[in-house]
Amino acid sequence: MRLSAIAQALGLPFSGEDREITGMNTLADARENELSFLSDSKHLKTLQNTRAGAVLVDTNALDAVPPSAAVLECENAALTMAAATALFAPPPTDRDGADPVVGAGSFVDPRAMLEPGVVIGKNVTVMAGAYLGSNVRVGDDTVIFPNVTVYRDCIVGARCRIHGGTTIGADGFGYAHTAQGEHVKIWQNGNVVIEDDVEIGANCSIDRAVFASTFIRRGTKIDNHVHVGHNCDIGEHGIFVAQVGVGGSTKLGRNCVVSGQTAFSDHLDIAPFSTFTARAGVTKSIKEGGKVWSGYPLMEHRVWVKLQAKLAKLVKG
Amino acid sequence: MRLSAIAQALGLPFSGEDREITGMNTLADARENELSFLSDSKHLKTLQNTRAGAVLVDTNALDAVPPSAAVLECENAALTMAAATALFAPPPTDRDGADPVVGAGSFVDPRAMLEPGVVIGKNVTVMAGAYLGSNVRVGDDTVIFPNVTVYRDCIVGARCRIHGGTTIGADGFGYAHTAQGEHVKIWQNGNVVIEDDVEIGANCSIDRAVFASTFIRRGTKIDNHVHVGHNCDIGEHGIFVAQVGVGGSTKLGRNCVVSGQTAFSDHLDIAPFSTFTARAGVTKSIKEGGKVWSGYPLMEHRVWVKLQAKLAKLVKG
Amino acid sequence: MRLSAIAQALGLPFSGEDREITGMNTLADARENELSFLSDSKHLKTLQNTRAGAVLVDTNALDAVPPSAAVLECENAALTMAAATALFAPPPTDRDGADPVVGAGSFVDPRAMLEPGVVIGKNVTVMAGAYLGSNVRVGDDTVIFPNVTVYRDCIVGARCRIHGGTTIGADGFGYAHTAQGEHVKIWQNGNVVIEDDVEIGANCSIDRAVFASTFIRRGTKIDNHVHVGHNCDIGEHGIFVAQVGVGGSTKLGRNCVVSGQTAFSDHLDIAPFSTFTARAGVTKSIKEGGKVWSGYPLMEHRVWVKLQAKLAKLVKG
Repeated sequence: MRLSAIAQALGLPFSGEDREITGMNTLADARENELSFLSDSKHLKTLQNTRAGAVLVDTNALDAVPPSAAVLECENAALTMAAATALFAPPPTDRDGADPVVGAGSFVDPRAMLEPGVVIGKNVTVMAGAYLGSNVRVGDDTVIFPNVTVYRDCIVGARCRIHGGTTIGADGFGYAHTAQGEHVKIWQNGNVVIEDDVEIGANCSIDRAVFASTFIRRGTKIDNHVHVGHNCDIGEHGIFVAQVGVGGSTKLGRNCVVSGQTAFSDHLDIAPFSTFTARAGVTKSIKEGGKVWSGYPLMEHRVWVKLQAKLAKLVKG
Repeated sequence: MRLSAIAQALGLPFSGEDREITGMNTLADARENELSFLSDSKHLKTLQNTRAGAVLVDTNALDAVPPSAAVLECENAALTMAAATALFAPPPTDRDGADPVVGAGSFVDPRAMLEPGVVIGKNVTVMAGAYLGSNVRVGDDTVIFPNVTVYRDCIVGARCRIHGGTTIGADGFGYAHTAQGEHVKIWQNGNVVIEDDVEIGANCSIDRAVFASTFIRRGTKIDNHVHVGHNCDIGEHGIFVAQVGVGGSTKLGRNCVVSGQTAFSDHLDIAPFSTFTARAGVTKSIKEGGKVWSGYPLMEHRVWVKLQAKLAKLVKG
Repeated sequence: MRLSAIAQALGLPFSGEDREITGMNTLADARENELSFLSDSKHLKTLQNTRAGAVLVDTNALDAVPPSAAVLECENAALTMAAATALFAPPPTDRDGADPVVGAGSFVDPRAMLEPGVVIGKNVTVMAGAYLGSNVRVGDDTVIFPNVTVYRDCIVGARCRIHGGTTIGADGFGYAHTAQGEHVKIWQNGNVVIEDDVEIGANCSIDRAVFASTFIRRGTKIDNHVHVGHNCDIGEHGIFVAQVGVGGSTKLGRNCVVSGQTAFSDHLDIAPFSTFTARAGVTKSIKEGGKVWSGYPLMEHRVWVKLQAKLAKLVKG
């Protein structure tokens, strides 16, 4: 899409050199053919170093735009950014496209539902009632159980098992907010990438990224009713027990063990080999790996045990 | 159904003037053609003022029945009420009825499942594997994603998005209990009404009302794995983050912000513009809006912060 | 399968008397034609008394094997046991087998998905989009709502209601772990047995057993988003409110009342008539029934109330 056409669609003036824009991304990740935005002034420094081909910015941030980026000046970059995402949103499904390709030895139940562009590896089983959206790719030896939903453009690796009722690639939860308290959708135009040897239990939801990808890395095992928000990056060989929730953009290192009902805020960075006991509430990043954490607010498990002893004493006193 | 026939079906004596009863409702909401009940003596005053055409009451409450209401006297009104709801329960689906009506510009995937009486607006997308029960109505420009289930008689507004694996209109959780500890189903004969501009994430469940409707009001956005009980009324422009639970009949005002894993007891009334931090536990109504709440038991957020500081000190001491 | 063939498949030496092995089981439950294993030295005594026809044991436990059991000696019985479970795993579905049998008065929607060997009783309703795996049995008068998934070999009793989006019989969450931190699947070869008069809400998951069965006993009622792990035994006439989680192998007695978001660790034994208030965290077995429990760590409700009063005082002090 031409940048001039984007400006016109958003009702913004545009006078610079026109260019082709293929999508949107964050200031840190955007490339020359992508549109980015400054939705929060705390990212001013990132704006100064962005490689984005164009940026949506409020008037007061114009000075921070690097010369490489074309400027779309707006009154409320957060709201305009939301409107811009709609311009790049694909339809829920492509109704035309290549017939699904199914590898040797695979069994796709005729009652499974495949959209155009699906590519399935070898020795895969796709059971009745499973849905694979447009361009979904499934690796060798994977089993997709009944009534699983995989949204368009998502990728499932080899030797995975995705259990009944699980939804992969539904929209992440992102909105901009008007002064009147209404919520304007930020379209979620990324996807989900599930690497090899991942098992995901029943009735989980792994949201698609707003831009780029949500990742579930190789060898991770996920129990039932687990929620993973958009743009998370769940490290290799993790263990996630039932009813865990992970907020958007949170990144966990490899081999984390997360017990039941634990929850993570968004935008955290969790060191590898961290262990969380049941119902931990994690609201800050963890830099040092290999520790055991408990409670909400979070504390080291040994401190939590001590606190509980103090509380037991308090109630007896 | 004639009141005399209801009495007969329930094994109750009936000697008053017969009348047509079209359904059941609470004492406060019942109209002249509805049957109500006193299942808890704390509602005696409401009984005195009911406009119900007939009431199920225990012998000791006979005096409180207003003259406008016919009386069905019983030994255990709570259990009899449960039995009565069965008389008004429609079948899970109507197998006969009008062919679905689909508005201009809509795409209903042939692998979607529509029951008789469905009415779909313009420019709607209903994806493969989605189920719309008898008489479901869907407003213009709405998208129903794959493997969504909408039970009979529910209503989805315009410009909504209902994500994969979500269930709208399953039975609310209501039982009467025998002296032997068995649970007798209270049939859930109401529906769910989702107003315009609502987005509901993946694998949520919004239960149908026992009588009348469960409401999700205009502009509210709901993340994944959220549970909304029967007869809730979720106000306009709310934000519900993942894994929140709302107990039956709880009413939230407009623009409440509810963070992840927060839970509400049943029968609460929450003031508008209330904010709840993650994993709040709300067991009492909130009269004053605009505040921030935390913890379980619930307290103002600033008190919760102070409590955590005290506890941190306690564990160090 | 011959024991010699099992040994060969696992790469283990075998020199004893060969025998037919039909499956695997725990040391306590295994019978003469079953293979068992010592995966944790704390079960040494159970090994001494096992009736298993054969056992997988590490070298240092050889002395504890009773004479009735053939020995498969291995370096790491926990990992070898996981590998052995794969030998007994049935395919996700039988593609050949008897046509489904449907009792008189039943309605199976043509858009429901039944596998070979399904047997359905009288007056059953199976709605569109519901999936019944190979050999699933459904009792009289039961309703299976749309987009329910029942995995192979599971049994649903009479007069049950299983609501939309619920998954019965997905794999339990069980893995052995390598020294490199990888997780090796323990195949879940058991099933789920749901007895009569059970209602299960929307978007629940009841996992199949690793061996034998997960049980939901007669008359139990389960709300939405409830997770029940593998090999649980949920007693008669229980009440489970929304978003409860029950860890694997936990056993609850009859008439337990479990409020919303409560969670149980695995391998607990909970006395009958126990009540848990909202968000209780249960990590130890409960021997004395009839009490009310709260909090995490769990305490008697009256103690929890006292603790909250102390904390309220603390924050004021």
